[in-house]
Amino acid sequence: DACVIATRSLVPEVYDAFALAAKHGVNAISTCEESFYPWTTSPALTNRLDRLAKDNNCTLAGSGYQDVFWGNLITTLAGSSHKIERIEGVSSYNVEDYGIALAEVHGAGLSLEEFEKEIAQSESLPSFMWNSNEWLCSQFGWSIKSNSQKLVPTTHNKDIKSTTLNKVIPAGHATGMSAIVTTVTNQGPVIVSECIGKVYAEGEFDRNDWKIIGEPNTVVNIARPATVELTCATIVNRIPQLIDAPPGYYTTEKMPPAQYRTYPLHFYTK
Amino acid sequence: DACVIATRSLVPEVYDAFALAAKHGVNAISTCEESFYPWTTSPALTNRLDRLAKDNNCTLAGSGYQDVFWGNLITTLAGSSHKIERIEGVSSYNVEDYGIALAEVHGAGLSLEEFEKEIAQSESLPSFMWNSNEWLCSQFGWSIKSNSQKLVPTTHNKDIKSTTLNKVIPAGHATGMSAIVTTVTNQGPVIVSECIGKVYAEGEFDRNDWKIIGEPNTVVNIARPATVELTCATIVNRIPQLIDAPPGYYTTEKMPPAQYRTYPLHFYTK
Repeated sequence: DACVIATRSLVPEVYDAFALAAKHGVNAISTCEESFYPWTTSPALTNRLDRLAKDNNCTLAGSGYQDVFWGNLITTLAGSSHKIERIEGVSSYNVEDYGIALAEVHGAGLSLEEFEKEIAQSESLPSFMWNSNEWLCSQFGWSIKSNSQKLVPTTHNKDIKSTTLNKVIPAGHATGMSAIVTTVTNQGPVIVSECIGKVYAEGEFDRNDWKIIGEPNTVVNIARPATVELTCATIVNRIPQLIDAPPGYYTTEKMPPAQYRTYPLHFYTK
Repeated sequence: DACVIATRSLVPEVYDAFALAAKHGVNAISTCEESFYPWTTSPALTNRLDRLAKDNNCTLAGSGYQDVFWGNLITTLAGSSHKIERIEGVSSYNVEDYGIALAEVHGAGLSLEEFEKEIAQSESLPSFMWNSNEWLCSQFGWSIKSNSQKLVPTTHNKDIKSTTLNKVIPAGHATGMSAIVTTVTNQGPVIVSECIGKVYAEGEFDRNDWKIIGEPNTVVNIARPATVELTCATIVNRIPQLIDAPPGYYTTEKMPPAQYRTYPLHFYTK
Protein backbone atom coordinates (compact mmCIF):
# COMPACT_ATOMS: atom_id res chain seq x y z
CA ASP A 1 0.00 0.00 0.00
CA ALA A 2 3.00 2.31 0.25
CA CYS A 3 6.12 3.01 -1.76
CA VAL A 4 9.34 4.53 -0.40
CA ILE A 5 11.29 6.72 -2.84
CA ALA A 6 14.86 7.06 -1.56
CA THR A 7 16.78 8.22 -4.59
CA ARG A 8 17.45 11.93 -5.18
CA SER A 9 17.25 15.28 -3.39
CA LEU A 10 15.21 17.52 -5.71
CA VAL A 11 11.56 17.31 -6.75
CA PRO A 12 12.18 17.36 -10.55
CA GLU A 13 14.36 14.27 -9.99
CA VAL A 14 11.72 12.29 -8.07
CA TYR A 15 8.70 13.57 -9.98
CA ASP A 16 8.46 10.53 -12.25
CA ALA A 17 8.62 8.07 -9.33
CA PHE A 18 5.95 9.99 -7.40
CA ALA A 19 3.77 10.25 -10.54
CA LEU A 20 4.09 6.53 -11.28
CA ALA A 21 3.00 5.64 -7.74
CA ALA A 22 0.12 8.12 -7.83
CA LYS A 23 -1.17 6.90 -11.20
CA HIS A 24 -1.52 3.44 -9.69
CA GLY A 25 -3.14 4.74 -6.50
CA VAL A 26 -0.12 3.79 -4.39
CA ASN A 27 0.79 6.04 -1.42
CA ALA A 28 4.40 7.22 -1.64
CA ILE A 29 6.85 8.86 0.75
CA SER A 30 10.30 10.16 -0.16
CA THR A 31 13.56 11.07 1.54
CA CYS A 32 14.00 13.73 -1.19
CA GLU A 33 14.75 16.81 0.89
CA GLU A 34 12.91 19.24 -1.35
CA SER A 35 9.82 17.01 -1.21
CA PHE A 36 9.59 17.70 2.55
CA TYR A 37 7.90 21.02 1.77
CA PRO A 38 7.94 21.63 -2.00
CA TRP A 39 5.00 24.04 -2.34
CA THR A 40 7.05 27.14 -3.12
CA THR A 41 10.28 25.76 -4.60
CA SER A 42 8.56 23.40 -7.08
CA PRO A 43 5.00 24.69 -7.17
CA ALA A 44 4.00 23.48 -10.62
CA LEU A 45 5.26 19.92 -10.16
CA THR A 46 3.85 19.68 -6.63
CA ASN A 47 0.43 20.86 -7.76
CA ARG A 48 0.44 18.31 -10.60
CA LEU A 49 1.35 15.55 -8.14
CA ASP A 50 -1.33 16.78 -5.75
CA ARG A 51 -3.97 16.58 -8.52
CA LEU A 52 -2.77 13.15 -9.63
CA ALA A 53 -2.86 11.80 -6.06
CA LYS A 54 -6.34 13.20 -5.42
CA ASP A 55 -7.63 11.72 -8.67
CA ASN A 56 -6.28 8.31 -7.66
CA ASN A 57 -7.15 8.52 -3.95
CA CYS A 58 -3.64 8.18 -2.54
CA THR A 59 -1.21 10.33 -0.55
CA LEU A 60 2.28 11.61 -1.40
CA ALA A 61 4.69 13.15 1.13
CA GLY A 62 8.34 13.75 2.02
CA SER A 63 9.99 12.81 5.31
CA GLY A 64 13.33 11.67 6.76
CA TYR A 65 15.78 12.99 9.34
CA GLN A 66 14.60 16.57 8.84
CA ASP A 67 11.04 15.58 9.81
CA VAL A 68 12.11 14.93 13.41
CA PHE A 69 15.40 16.77 13.93
CA TRP A 70 14.78 20.01 12.00
CA GLY A 71 11.02 19.81 12.36
CA ASN A 72 9.03 18.27 15.19
CA LEU A 73 11.92 18.42 17.68
CA ILE A 74 11.80 22.21 17.33
CA THR A 75 8.02 22.58 17.38
CA THR A 76 7.76 20.21 20.37
CA LEU A 77 10.25 22.30 22.36
CA ALA A 78 8.53 25.47 21.16
CA GLY A 79 5.39 24.18 22.88
CA SER A 80 7.08 25.18 26.14
CA SER A 81 7.98 28.71 24.99
CA HIS A 82 6.06 31.83 25.86
CA LYS A 83 7.63 34.03 23.17
CA ILE A 84 9.87 33.12 20.24
CA GLU A 85 12.03 35.81 18.67
CA ARG A 86 14.50 33.69 16.77
CA ILE A 87 15.26 30.06 16.04
CA GLU A 88 18.83 29.06 15.18
CA GLY A 89 19.85 25.63 14.00
CA VAL A 90 23.05 23.91 12.90
CA SER A 91 23.02 20.42 11.48
CA SER A 92 25.95 18.56 10.02
CA TYR A 93 26.14 15.26 8.16
CA ASN A 94 28.67 13.31 6.14
CA VAL A 95 27.86 13.38 2.44
CA GLU A 96 29.75 10.07 2.17
CA ASP A 97 26.75 8.38 3.81
CA TYR A 98 24.13 9.24 1.19
CA GLY A 99 25.38 8.30 -2.26
CA ILE A 100 26.31 10.31 -5.29
CA ALA A 101 23.12 12.38 -5.70
CA LEU A 102 23.53 14.14 -2.40
CA ALA A 103 27.30 14.53 -2.84
CA GLU A 104 26.70 16.30 -6.16
CA VAL A 105 24.20 18.88 -4.87
CA HIS A 106 26.74 19.71 -2.14
CA GLY A 107 29.46 20.39 -4.67
CA ALA A 108 31.76 17.85 -3.00
CA GLY A 109 35.01 17.51 -4.94
CA LEU A 110 34.64 20.70 -6.98
CA SER A 111 37.35 23.33 -7.14
CA LEU A 112 36.30 26.60 -5.52
CA GLU A 113 35.83 28.17 -8.96
CA GLU A 114 33.59 25.29 -10.07
CA PHE A 115 31.69 25.51 -6.77
CA GLU A 116 31.05 29.21 -7.31
CA LYS A 117 29.69 28.62 -10.82
CA GLU A 118 27.80 25.35 -10.38
CA ILE A 119 26.51 25.64 -6.82
CA ALA A 120 26.72 29.09 -5.25
CA GLN A 121 25.33 30.97 -8.28
CA SER A 122 22.64 28.45 -9.03
CA GLU A 123 19.51 30.04 -7.66
CA SER A 124 17.36 27.15 -8.72
CA LEU A 125 18.71 24.77 -6.08
CA PRO A 126 17.02 25.15 -2.70
CA SER A 127 19.28 23.85 0.05
CA PHE A 128 17.74 21.32 2.45
CA MET A 129 17.06 23.80 5.24
CA TRP A 130 15.13 26.04 2.83
CA ASN A 131 12.30 23.53 2.63
CA SER A 132 12.66 22.69 6.28
CA ASN A 133 12.30 26.33 7.37
CA GLU A 134 9.17 26.61 5.24
CA TRP A 135 7.82 23.42 6.83
CA LEU A 136 8.40 24.96 10.30
CA CYS A 137 6.68 28.20 9.31
CA SER A 138 3.70 26.30 7.99
CA GLN A 139 3.44 24.29 11.20
CA PHE A 140 3.74 27.38 13.40
CA GLY A 141 1.19 29.25 11.29
CA TRP A 142 3.75 31.87 10.24
CA SER A 143 3.75 33.52 6.82
CA ILE A 144 7.07 34.22 5.12
CA LYS A 145 8.24 37.79 4.48
CA SER A 146 11.58 36.79 2.97
CA ASN A 147 13.71 33.70 2.51
CA SER A 148 17.33 33.75 1.44
CA GLN A 149 20.21 31.33 1.35
CA LYS A 150 23.95 31.56 1.25
CA LEU A 151 25.98 28.60 0.02
CA VAL A 152 29.57 28.49 1.26
CA PRO A 153 32.01 25.76 0.27
CA THR A 154 33.70 23.80 3.08
CA THR A 155 37.34 22.89 2.62
CA HIS A 156 39.99 20.85 4.40
CA ASN A 157 43.72 21.50 4.65
CA LYS A 158 44.65 17.93 3.60
CA ASP A 159 43.59 15.66 0.74
CA ILE A 160 40.55 13.52 1.65
CA LYS A 161 39.59 10.27 -0.05
CA SER A 162 35.88 10.13 -0.93
CA THR A 163 34.39 6.67 -1.44
CA THR A 164 31.15 8.04 -2.87
CA LEU A 165 32.92 10.23 -5.43
CA ASN A 166 35.54 7.52 -5.93
CA LYS A 167 38.34 10.08 -5.94
CA VAL A 168 40.63 12.09 -3.74
CA ILE A 169 39.46 15.61 -2.97
CA PRO A 170 42.59 17.79 -3.09
CA ALA A 171 43.33 20.04 -0.12
CA GLY A 172 41.55 23.37 -0.60
CA HIS A 173 38.85 21.98 -2.93
CA ALA A 174 35.24 21.88 -1.78
CA THR A 175 34.57 18.94 0.56
CA GLY A 176 30.91 19.96 0.50
CA MET A 177 29.07 23.02 1.66
CA SER A 178 27.46 24.96 4.42
CA ALA A 179 24.07 26.34 3.46
CA ILE A 180 22.65 29.08 5.64
CA VAL A 181 18.98 29.85 5.15
CA THR A 182 17.44 32.94 6.77
CA THR A 183 13.67 33.03 6.92
CA VAL A 184 11.97 36.21 8.13
CA THR A 185 8.30 35.89 9.03
CA ASN A 186 5.56 38.49 9.03
CA GLN A 187 4.74 37.48 12.61
CA GLY A 188 8.20 38.47 13.84
CA PRO A 189 10.18 35.28 14.47
CA VAL A 190 13.28 34.74 12.33
CA ILE A 191 14.66 31.28 11.55
CA VAL A 192 18.37 31.02 10.72
CA SER A 193 19.39 27.48 9.98
CA GLU A 194 22.70 26.15 8.79
CA CYS A 195 23.11 22.81 7.21
CA ILE A 196 26.63 21.49 6.72
CA GLY A 197 27.07 18.55 4.38
CA LYS A 198 30.62 17.55 3.59
CA VAL A 199 33.02 14.66 3.27
CA TYR A 200 34.21 14.33 6.85
CA ALA A 201 37.83 14.47 7.81
CA GLU A 202 38.95 12.10 10.57
CA GLY A 203 37.38 12.85 13.94
CA GLU A 204 34.34 14.73 12.58
CA PHE A 205 30.83 13.66 13.63
CA ASP A 206 27.23 14.49 12.86
CA ARG A 207 25.62 17.16 14.97
CA ASN A 208 22.22 18.76 15.38
CA ASP A 209 22.04 21.81 17.65
CA TRP A 210 19.17 24.26 17.94
CA LYS A 211 18.39 27.36 19.95
CA ILE A 212 14.97 28.82 20.56
CA ILE A 213 15.57 32.43 21.56
CA GLY A 214 12.90 34.44 23.32
CA GLU A 215 11.17 33.85 26.64
CA PRO A 216 12.83 31.72 27.83
CA ASN A 217 15.85 30.58 25.78
CA THR A 218 16.06 26.85 25.17
CA VAL A 219 19.13 25.08 23.77
CA VAL A 220 18.99 21.49 22.53
CA ASN A 221 21.92 19.35 21.40
CA ILE A 222 21.75 15.92 19.85
CA ALA A 223 25.09 14.21 20.39
CA ARG A 224 26.38 12.43 17.29
CA PRO A 225 22.98 11.60 15.75
CA ALA A 226 22.94 8.46 13.61
CA THR A 227 21.54 10.48 10.73
CA VAL A 228 21.26 7.67 8.16
CA GLU A 229 19.51 5.20 10.48
CA LEU A 230 17.23 7.94 11.83
CA THR A 231 16.24 8.88 8.26
CA CYS A 232 15.31 5.30 7.41
CA ALA A 233 13.38 4.69 10.63
CA THR A 234 11.45 7.96 10.34
CA ILE A 235 10.31 7.19 6.80
CA VAL A 236 9.07 3.75 7.85
CA ASN A 237 7.41 5.06 11.04
CA ARG A 238 5.51 7.59 8.90
CA ILE A 239 3.89 4.94 6.66
CA PRO A 240 0.71 4.37 8.74
CA GLN A 241 0.13 8.16 8.90
CA LEU A 242 0.78 8.42 5.15
CA ILE A 243 -1.83 5.73 4.48
CA ASP A 244 -4.37 7.41 6.76
CA ALA A 245 -3.77 10.96 5.48
CA PRO A 246 -6.22 12.69 3.10
CA PRO A 247 -5.52 12.15 -0.62
CA GLY A 248 -3.16 14.55 -2.37
CA TYR A 249 0.34 15.86 -1.76
CA TYR A 250 0.02 16.10 2.01
CA THR A 251 3.12 17.46 3.75
CA THR A 252 3.97 16.07 7.19
CA GLU A 253 3.75 19.33 9.14
CA LYS A 254 -0.02 18.75 8.98
CA MET A 255 0.32 15.28 10.54
CA PRO A 256 1.10 14.47 14.20
CA PRO A 257 4.84 13.79 14.79
CA ALA A 258 6.19 10.48 13.47
CA GLN A 259 5.47 7.80 16.04
CA TYR A 260 7.62 4.94 17.34
CA ARG A 261 6.11 1.65 16.15
CA THR A 262 6.10 -1.01 18.85
CA TYR A 263 3.72 -3.26 16.93
CA PRO A 264 3.53 -4.20 13.21
CA LEU A 265 2.72 -1.21 11.00
CA HIS A 266 -0.78 -2.39 10.01
CA PHE A 267 -1.74 -2.20 13.71
CA TYR A 268 -1.60 1.60 13.42
CA THR A 269 -3.71 2.23 10.31
CA LYS A 270 -7.37 3.15 10.66
CA ASP B 1 -13.16 29.08 30.42
CA ALA B 2 -10.08 27.58 32.05
CA CYS B 3 -8.53 27.53 35.49
CA VAL B 4 -4.83 26.94 36.24
CA ILE B 5 -4.06 25.12 39.50
CA ALA B 6 -0.44 25.75 40.42
CA THR B 7 -0.29 24.87 44.08
CA ARG B 8 0.84 21.41 45.21
CA SER B 9 2.47 18.25 43.87
CA LEU B 10 0.11 15.41 44.84
CA VAL B 11 -3.43 14.65 43.70
CA PRO B 12 -4.99 14.49 47.21
CA GLU B 13 -3.69 18.04 47.70
CA VAL B 14 -5.24 19.46 44.51
CA TYR B 15 -8.40 17.34 44.54
CA ASP B 16 -10.57 20.07 46.07
CA ALA B 17 -9.43 22.68 43.57
CA PHE B 18 -10.06 20.33 40.62
CA ALA B 19 -13.45 19.31 42.06
CA LEU B 20 -14.50 22.94 42.58
CA ALA B 21 -13.65 23.79 38.96
CA ALA B 22 -15.40 20.66 37.64
CA LYS B 23 -18.60 21.30 39.65
CA HIS B 24 -18.88 24.66 37.93
CA GLY B 25 -18.11 23.25 34.49
CA VAL B 26 -14.76 25.05 34.31
CA ASN B 27 -11.87 23.32 32.52
CA ALA B 28 -8.81 23.04 34.77
CA ILE B 29 -5.14 22.22 34.24
CA SER B 30 -2.57 21.75 36.99
CA THR B 31 1.19 21.79 37.44
CA CYS B 32 0.70 19.12 40.14
CA GLU B 33 3.19 16.47 39.05
CA GLU B 34 1.07 13.49 40.08
CA SER B 35 -1.85 14.92 38.11
CA PHE B 36 0.20 14.48 34.91
CA TYR B 37 -0.78 10.79 34.87
CA PRO B 38 -2.66 9.95 38.09
CA TRP B 39 -4.62 6.86 36.92
CA THR B 40 -2.67 4.31 38.94
CA THR B 41 -1.21 6.33 41.82
CA SER B 42 -4.51 8.01 42.79
CA PRO B 43 -7.10 5.88 40.99
CA ALA B 44 -10.10 6.56 43.24
CA LEU B 45 -9.69 10.34 43.28
CA THR B 46 -8.95 10.48 39.55
CA ASN B 47 -12.02 8.45 38.70
CA ARG B 48 -14.17 10.68 40.87
CA LEU B 49 -12.78 13.76 39.13
CA ASP B 50 -13.31 12.09 35.76
CA ARG B 51 -17.00 11.43 36.60
CA LEU B 52 -17.47 14.96 37.92
CA ALA B 53 -15.92 16.52 34.81
CA LYS B 54 -18.01 14.37 32.47
CA ASP B 55 -21.19 15.25 34.36
CA ASN B 56 -20.38 18.94 34.00
CA ASN B 57 -19.00 18.80 30.46
CA CYS B 58 -15.49 20.09 31.18
CA THR B 59 -11.94 18.74 31.01
CA LEU B 60 -9.30 18.29 33.73
CA ALA B 61 -5.61 17.57 33.06
CA GLY B 62 -2.06 17.95 34.35
CA SER B 63 0.84 19.50 32.45
CA GLY B 64 4.02 21.51 32.99
CA TYR B 65 7.72 21.05 32.28
CA GLN B 66 7.38 17.25 32.32
CA ASP B 67 4.81 17.41 29.51
CA VAL B 68 7.47 18.57 27.04
CA PHE B 69 10.84 17.63 28.54
CA TRP B 70 10.08 14.20 30.04
CA GLY B 71 7.23 13.49 27.67
CA ASN B 72 6.80 14.71 24.10
CA LEU B 73 10.51 15.46 23.62
CA ILE B 74 11.14 11.74 24.14
CA THR B 75 8.25 10.46 22.05
CA THR B 76 9.08 12.91 19.25
CA LEU B 77 12.68 11.65 19.10
CA ALA B 78 11.42 8.07 19.40
CA GLY B 79 9.54 8.68 16.15
CA SER B 80 12.91 8.37 14.43
CA SER B 81 13.86 5.09 16.14
CA HIS B 82 13.56 1.67 14.60
CA LYS B 83 13.88 -0.26 17.86
CA ILE B 84 13.85 0.94 21.47
CA GLU B 85 15.37 -1.24 24.18
CA ARG B 86 15.79 1.26 26.94
CA ILE B 87 15.12 4.91 27.69
CA GLU B 88 17.27 6.67 30.28
CA GLY B 89 16.61 10.16 31.58
CA VAL B 90 18.14 12.51 34.13
CA SER B 91 16.50 15.77 35.03
CA SER B 92 17.60 18.17 37.71
CA TYR B 93 15.93 21.28 39.10
CA ASN B 94 16.36 23.64 42.03
CA VAL B 95 13.68 23.09 44.68
CA GLU B 96 14.25 26.72 45.68
CA ASP B 97 12.34 27.74 42.55
CA TYR B 98 9.01 26.09 43.36
CA GLY B 99 7.89 27.06 46.84
CA ILE B 100 7.44 25.12 50.01
CA ALA B 101 5.17 22.28 48.74
CA LEU B 102 7.75 20.93 46.37
CA ALA B 103 10.61 21.45 48.84
CA GLU B 104 8.74 19.34 51.40
CA VAL B 105 8.09 16.33 49.14
CA HIS B 106 11.81 16.35 48.33
CA GLY B 107 12.77 16.19 52.00
CA ALA B 108 14.90 19.32 51.68
CA GLY B 109 16.34 20.31 55.05
CA LEU B 110 15.70 16.98 56.78
CA SER B 111 18.40 15.08 58.60
CA LEU B 112 19.27 11.79 56.93
CA GLU B 113 17.35 9.90 59.66
CA GLU B 114 14.26 12.05 59.12
CA PHE B 115 14.62 11.62 55.35
CA GLU B 116 14.72 7.85 55.74
CA LYS B 117 11.55 7.83 57.85
CA GLU B 118 9.47 10.56 56.20
CA ILE B 119 10.49 10.23 52.56
CA ALA B 120 12.36 7.05 51.63
CA GLN B 121 10.04 4.66 53.51
CA SER B 122 6.88 6.42 52.45
CA GLU B 123 5.52 4.21 49.70
CA SER B 124 2.51 6.39 49.21
CA LEU B 125 4.46 9.22 47.61
CA PRO B 126 5.07 8.69 43.91
CA SER B 127 8.08 10.70 42.75
CA PHE B 128 7.54 12.95 39.74
CA MET B 129 9.13 10.58 37.23
CA TRP B 130 6.82 7.78 38.33
CA ASN B 131 3.82 9.49 36.76
CA SER B 132 5.91 10.68 33.85
CA ASN B 133 7.10 7.15 33.01
CA GLU B 134 3.49 5.95 33.10
CA TRP B 135 2.52 8.82 30.80
CA LEU B 136 5.26 7.74 28.34
CA CYS B 137 4.13 4.10 28.46
CA SER B 138 0.55 5.13 27.79
CA GLN B 139 1.61 7.23 24.82
CA PHE B 140 3.80 4.48 23.37
CA GLY B 141 1.05 1.90 23.88
CA TRP B 142 3.17 -0.08 26.34
CA SER B 143 1.70 -1.94 29.33
CA ILE B 144 3.62 -1.93 32.61
CA LYS B 145 5.06 -5.14 34.05
CA SER B 146 6.66 -3.46 37.06
CA ASN B 147 7.36 -0.01 38.38
CA SER B 148 9.68 0.75 41.26
CA GLN B 149 11.33 3.78 42.73
CA LYS B 150 14.33 4.47 44.89
CA LEU B 151 14.56 7.73 46.80
CA VAL B 152 18.08 8.80 47.72
CA PRO B 153 18.85 11.98 49.70
CA THR B 154 21.25 14.48 48.14
CA THR B 155 23.69 16.23 50.45
CA HIS B 156 26.28 18.99 50.29
CA ASN B 157 29.54 19.32 52.16
CA LYS B 158 28.83 22.89 53.28
CA ASP B 159 25.86 24.64 54.91
CA ILE B 160 23.42 26.01 52.32
CA LYS B 161 20.91 28.78 52.96
CA SER B 162 17.44 27.94 51.64
CA THR B 163 15.12 30.88 51.01
CA THR B 164 12.09 28.65 50.49
CA LEU B 165 12.62 26.78 53.77
CA ASN B 166 13.75 30.01 55.40
CA LYS B 167 16.62 28.23 57.15
CA VAL B 168 20.15 27.01 56.73
CA ILE B 169 20.51 23.36 55.71
CA PRO B 170 23.47 22.03 57.69
CA ALA B 171 26.25 20.26 55.80
CA GLY B 172 25.38 16.56 55.49
CA HIS B 173 21.62 17.06 55.84
CA ALA B 174 19.33 16.37 52.90
CA THR B 175 19.37 19.20 50.35
CA GLY B 176 16.68 17.33 48.44
CA MET B 177 16.58 14.00 46.72
CA SER B 178 17.29 11.94 43.68
CA ALA B 179 14.37 9.72 42.73
CA ILE B 180 15.09 6.87 40.33
CA VAL B 181 12.08 5.20 38.78
CA THR B 182 12.49 1.97 36.82
CA THR B 183 9.58 0.98 34.64
CA VAL B 184 9.66 -2.44 32.94
CA THR B 185 7.14 -2.95 30.14
CA ASN B 186 5.57 -6.14 28.83
CA GLN B 187 6.63 -5.10 25.33
CA GLY B 188 10.31 -5.12 26.27
CA PRO B 189 11.47 -1.52 26.61
CA VAL B 190 12.65 -0.39 30.05
CA ILE B 191 12.49 3.24 31.20
CA VAL B 192 14.94 4.34 33.90
CA SER B 193 14.49 7.95 34.82
CA GLU B 194 16.16 9.95 37.52
CA CYS B 195 14.81 13.18 38.81
CA ILE B 196 17.04 15.26 41.05
CA GLY B 197 15.40 18.05 43.01
CA LYS B 198 17.53 19.82 45.55
CA VAL B 199 18.58 23.17 46.91
CA TYR B 200 21.41 24.05 44.56
CA ALA B 201 24.87 24.86 45.77
CA GLU B 202 26.69 27.66 43.91
CA GLY B 203 27.46 26.79 40.29
CA GLU B 204 24.77 24.13 39.89
CA PHE B 205 22.27 24.39 37.01
CA ASP B 206 19.17 22.64 35.75
CA ARG B 207 19.71 19.82 33.30
CA ASN B 208 17.59 17.48 31.21
CA ASP B 209 19.43 14.65 29.45
CA TRP B 210 17.88 11.60 27.82
CA LYS B 211 19.11 8.56 25.94
CA ILE B 212 17.06 6.36 23.66
CA ILE B 213 18.97 3.11 23.44
CA GLY B 214 18.28 0.64 20.66
CA GLU B 215 18.57 1.01 16.90
CA PRO B 216 20.04 3.56 16.67
CA ASN B 217 21.05 5.27 19.94
CA THR B 218 19.97 8.89 20.29
CA VAL B 219 21.24 11.22 23.00
CA VAL B 220 19.58 14.57 23.69
CA ASN B 221 20.77 17.27 26.06
CA ILE B 222 18.97 20.43 27.02
CA ALA B 223 21.52 22.94 28.26
CA ARG B 224 20.41 24.75 31.43
CA PRO B 225 16.65 24.61 30.79
CA ALA B 226 14.68 27.48 32.32
CA THR B 227 12.48 24.96 34.11
CA VAL B 228 10.16 27.42 35.88
CA GLU B 229 9.44 29.56 32.82
CA LEU B 230 9.00 26.45 30.65
CA THR B 231 6.49 25.04 33.14
CA CYS B 232 4.40 28.22 33.07
CA ALA B 233 4.48 28.58 29.29
CA THR B 234 3.57 24.92 28.71
CA ILE B 235 0.53 25.12 30.99
CA VAL B 236 -0.73 28.22 29.18
CA ASN B 237 0.01 26.79 25.71
CA ARG B 238 -2.07 23.72 26.63
CA ILE B 239 -5.22 25.73 27.40
CA PRO B 240 -6.77 25.65 23.89
CA GLN B 241 -6.23 21.87 23.72
CA LEU B 242 -7.70 21.50 27.22
CA ILE B 243 -10.81 23.42 26.15
CA ASP B 244 -11.19 21.32 22.99
CA ALA B 245 -10.53 17.93 24.65
CA PRO B 246 -13.37 15.50 25.41
CA PRO B 247 -15.00 15.92 28.86
CA GLY B 248 -13.48 14.04 31.78
CA TYR B 249 -10.03 13.68 33.28
CA TYR B 250 -8.15 13.64 29.99
CA THR B 251 -4.38 13.23 30.33
CA THR B 252 -2.15 15.03 27.84
CA GLU B 253 -0.48 11.96 26.32
CA LYS B 254 -3.73 11.60 24.35
CA MET B 255 -3.44 15.15 22.98
CA PRO B 256 -1.00 16.39 20.31
CA PRO B 257 2.13 18.00 21.82
CA ALA B 258 1.69 21.42 23.42
CA GLN B 259 1.87 24.04 20.68
CA TYR B 260 3.59 27.43 20.55
CA ARG B 261 0.95 30.13 20.46
CA THR B 262 1.76 32.92 18.02
CA TYR B 263 -1.74 34.38 18.14
CA PRO B 264 -4.15 34.98 21.06
CA LEU B 265 -5.29 31.71 22.69
CA HIS B 266 -8.91 31.93 21.50
CA PHE B 267 -7.61 31.79 17.91
CA TYR B 268 -6.73 28.12 18.50
CA THR B 269 -9.96 26.77 20.00
CA LYS B 270 -12.47 25.04 17.76
